[in-house]
Amino acid sequence: MMNWLQKLFSNPSDQLTLDLTPILGFQPKNASLYHQALCHSSVDVSKYGDNERLEFLGDSILSTVITEHLYHNLPEKNEGTLTDIRSKLVRRKTLNDLAKKLEIDVLVKTNLGIKTPPSIFGNALEALIAAIYLDKGAATCKAFIIDKMISPNFSLHELEKEISSYKKHFLHWAQKKNKDCRFEVLGETGESHKKNFKIALYLAGENVATAQGSSKKKAEEAASKIACESLDV
Amino acid sequence: MMNWLQKLFSNPSDQLTLDLTPILGFQPKNASLYHQALCHSSVDVSKYGDNERLEFLGDSILSTVITEHLYHNLPEKNEGTLTDIRSKLVRRKTLNDLAKKLEIDVLVKTNLGIKTPPSIFGNALEALIAAIYLDKGAATCKAFIIDKMISPNFSLHELEKEISSYKKHFLHWAQKKNKDCRFEVLGETGESHKKNFKIALYLAGENVATAQGSSKKKAEEAASKIACESLDV
Repeated sequence: MMNWLQKLFSNPSDQLTLDLTPILGFQPKNASLYHQALCHSSVDVSKYGDNERLEFLGDSILSTVITEHLYHNLPEKNEGTLTDIRSKLVRRKTLNDLAKKLEIDVLVKTNLGIKTPPSIFGNALEALIAAIYLDKGAATCKAFIIDKMISPNFSLHELEKEISSYKKHFLHWAQKKNKDCRFEVLGETGESHKKNFKIALYLAGENVATAQGSSKKKAEEAASKIACESLDV
Repeated sequence: MMNWLQKLFSNPSDQLTLDLTPILGFQPKNASLYHQALCHSSVDVSKYGDNERLEFLGDSILSTVITEHLYHNLPEKNEGTLTDIRSKLVRRKTLNDLAKKLEIDVLVKTNLGIKTPPSIFGNALEALIAAIYLDKGAATCKAFIIDKMISPNFSLHELEKEISSYKKHFLHWAQKKNKDCRFEVLGETGESHKKNFKIALYLAGENVATAQGSSKKKAEEAASKIACESLDV
């Protein structure tokens, strides 16, 4: 009996199962999938493989589960608003923060020590989603995403309010950071009824985004959106 | 009996069900979902609503079903290759072509006549995927995507060969179109062990993409990828 107990607790596979069970809300079956999900390519991955393929799968599953959740829970919102809310939920920073909040970060194996960038934890969370999907199926995976990640941390209606304008959001952020920010019209083409404007957005003198639109306002909004996403604003 | 038959065939809802059954390989249950999926916002949508929210959902489902298919069927490929193959399968042009091949295009209601851009058919196909998902569940929807859209039309290994280099692919396309194409280094920053190159891609004198990378080669490849995607090359 003692032998069996010792074996259980000294076996790293079982230790990970024990650590993950309260986080996931269920007991993993196929432990090796979870080991792989939490294994960054910087460590020796000869046993389980690194988590990059799982991340590829988990990223997509996460996006679809959130898409379906928004589709059902915001029946009055158009696809533009739904797309914006989804972007906010699946962006890199959100996932990195959630990985820490769920205490996934301390379970991730990397060789980068304190230099480990937070994106590695967000990526591991995506890989973990794929592990859950492959191990326990779509329903358990959906429940993890909605009940553990989304519902306790976000209000859909608050998110919707936040993303009324990317331009406003970006300018506000630039002001807070004390960075000079300006738009510049690069070109204007087309007949009067079908104009097209190309607009560049500069932050502290550097071109951070360029976008087009049928009005200056639309092109500025599109450029701001690109900037928000690429700079994780 | 005659009356009942007449009613069946003159009822547009049932007509759509009849038209769709051979295309889908099963009989739709909730006809109104399919009406909505095939209803572009340019027509009177007061009865079923337009297909934009369904398209938002279907686009995501399609991407995840393909992601899972690639994950399982190409176990030796890394996430970079899988991402590239997926891009090719879910790109606008592929969907527009598939909509025509499946003869979805003739079922789409628009008010644009012969000016209807092909993307409206691709979008309707995405909306149709969501309708199937909501009407018949995940398994039927997966089977439609894999058995009707992907397997008869694409070889994963051929796709993989095609996307060995976006730069090669883009230059080849530009040459065929007789368009001048060149890369320009916009900037080079960082120490020698951690360089960063910013490169612009010009097509017929117009900047079509800008990207960064740790080598000129990587930045050129990244810019070519952006150009391939945005220009549907």
